[in-house]
Amino acid sequence: MAILGIDPGTTSIGYGVVEKRKNCLCVVDFGCINASPKIFNEISIKTESFNYLPLQLKKIYDEVTSLIERHHPEELACEKLFMYKNVKTAMSVGQSRGVIILAGVNAGIEVSEYTPLQVKQSVVGYGRATKNQVQQMVKMLLNMEEIPRPDDAADALAVAICHINSAGLSKLIASHNHP
Amino acid sequence: MAILGIDPGTTSIGYGVVEKRKNCLCVVDFGCINASPKIFNEISIKTESFNYLPLQLKKIYDEVTSLIERHHPEELACEKLFMYKNVKTAMSVGQSRGVIILAGVNAGIEVSEYTPLQVKQSVVGYGRATKNQVQQMVKMLLNMEEIPRPDDAADALAVAICHINSAGLSKLIASHNHP
Repeated sequence: MAILGIDPGTTSIGYGVVEKRKNCLCVVDFGCINASPKIFNEISIKTESFNYLPLQLKKIYDEVTSLIERHHPEELACEKLFMYKNVKTAMSVGQSRGVIILAGVNAGIEVSEYTPLQVKQSVVGYGRATKNQVQQMVKMLLNMEEIPRPDDAADALAVAICHINSAGLSKLIASHNHP
Repeated sequence: MAILGIDPGTTSIGYGVVEKRKNCLCVVDFGCINASPKIFNEISIKTESFNYLPLQLKKIYDEVTSLIERHHPEELACEKLFMYKNVKTAMSVGQSRGVIILAGVNAGIEVSEYTPLQVKQSVVGYGRATKNQVQQMVKMLLNMEEIPRPDDAADALAVAICHINSAGLSKLIASHNHP
């Protein structure tokens, strides 16, 4: 079972593909989607009032779609966060989340969402774990030599691990209810 | 020139198509996209923990895409709002906005965004106009017999009118700079 974990953002979107083989978790791919306005200026210089948002959203949607085509994950797990500095940031990350979730559903795979608390509890076993504790656990659980970089990619791998743990639990409960 | 105006929301998304013929504005179509969780339960009953969001976002994206295919608007204009009761609502409307804007860019049409202040100033000539004043002006400008209903559809028509006015102005400035 391969899972695509996503840590959504406005200009940098972390992704991580984790596969469960028997009782072992393996990292398949991880990195960041760069949707910064700068990359569009490399193609052609835009006017001052140019609206980058449509291009940014298309880039995020296309890259998530291409990750799904490349790795055939069975499910997509996306971080769900309701604590933002301000309404503008929440709106902005919401827009990215919208097209990420749409990429999953349009590719025909199930989409789950997890709060940072759920991710920390699942990966470290403690909801108030620090960023570094989460990263150390990700490195250990995936048998990696170093902490995955950048941070957004490490967060995305943690979301994927959280989903695999939760899915395993759900199946256990389901088989217990319907033996 | 036909313009598709959109008033984004979480479960009800207003739309309005306005065409400029010579010096007259004509209403082509208007209404609401219903993305309430209820409609998915009509197809099959979901469990209590069912995540409706992916289905809702897909419905919004598919319906905006189909409006573009039906009416061939040259551009899409979407309301941009940064004043929300809370971060959760902003996140939620952001997700809808993301897939609406993506539908425009994936259909190859330009997407513009306007704040409620810009819409009111353009339609009524006064940034603090009331909802009713905007609706009365929309009715008058589009030669409609009644105020368009529901409110979300009237708002979407106002956004389309605002874009047509702004686009006219931009062209005037452009032709003045490059006669």
